[in-house]
Amino acid sequence: MESMQLNQAFTLMEPGPVVLVTTRDGKKDNIMTISWTMVVDFTPVFAMTTGPWNYSYTALRKSRECVIAIPTVDLIDQVVGVGTCSGADTDKFEKFMLTPVKGKHVKAPLIKECLANIECKVIDVVEKHNIVVLQGIGAYIDHSRKEKRTLHAIGDGTFVVDGRKLNRRKMMQSKLPDGV
Amino acid sequence: MESMQLNQAFTLMEPGPVVLVTTRDGKKDNIMTISWTMVVDFTPVFAMTTGPWNYSYTALRKSRECVIAIPTVDLIDQVVGVGTCSGADTDKFEKFMLTPVKGKHVKAPLIKECLANIECKVIDVVEKHNIVVLQGIGAYIDHSRKEKRTLHAIGDGTFVVDGRKLNRRKMMQSKLPDGV
Repeated sequence: MESMQLNQAFTLMEPGPVVLVTTRDGKKDNIMTISWTMVVDFTPVFAMTTGPWNYSYTALRKSRECVIAIPTVDLIDQVVGVGTCSGADTDKFEKFMLTPVKGKHVKAPLIKECLANIECKVIDVVEKHNIVVLQGIGAYIDHSRKEKRTLHAIGDGTFVVDGRKLNRRKMMQSKLPDGV
Repeated sequence: MESMQLNQAFTLMEPGPVVLVTTRDGKKDNIMTISWTMVVDFTPVFAMTTGPWNYSYTALRKSRECVIAIPTVDLIDQVVGVGTCSGADTDKFEKFMLTPVKGKHVKAPLIKECLANIECKVIDVVEKHNIVVLQGIGAYIDHSRKEKRTLHAIGDGTFVVDGRKLNRRKMMQSKLPDGV
């Protein structure tokens, strides 16, 4: 897992993949599956919808930190498994054979098996809408990984896998942020 | 374009496609390309990051209405074109040969060429983060359309097209909202 320039981290989130979000409550690590996220700024700032219905929420509010890990298609059953059980009675890292890796900036762990990881600080919680606003402070990507296709949840129990890539960089040149 | 049950409209947005957002300022229609969106609730409520840097923002704030239109891969050049010029000096419906269709609940138009359209009311603006919160109040889908693959912006001028679909409905049964 190599460091990635922070000003490029939004490109991991902008396509809207399902993500795994890790937290640490002081004693133990947990993971939740989230597909309600968006980019809010290139700096990078992200928004995520979550609330008390997720067991991780208490740790997220208390520690004000998390890691957004980007899984790929080969991890689909772990992604669904993590999303359908609770950290209240399950060690999800153990159950789903995922490996926590110590990060640099936050206590929540990176997930070794994922394509990329973004260490984040909670910079705001918009209580009214259950929106948590996150600042990315470290980003890492596993360039050695062959499988790079991410998953997009439809929300009805089906998922779409990344297909072909189309390039419109020339047309969009005027709109691209520096260094991207 | 047939009506779609409102409680299923979130399934159009959850996978994170690039969308076109239409507004009407009282006199003329406009369109912007947005990929910073997320689902906030099944009801459906959506969040979208936008601000004064988008010409449409004034009409959005004033009318407190918009339509989220979901384009497919065959419309990529219109999507990029709409996103790289301004409604200040361009009639984007005319320039990109898109057809405005009168909706039922809002004055902003649906886009005929898109796979689906969601009529929305602005229910809140979180000024601090430039997050606009939208309530979907009408949803439509074009079942007759052959091309159904949507686009996901990477943010660097490239796009990923929807690939194959994977089904995990059985594993996720306990988590799916009623009627989805």
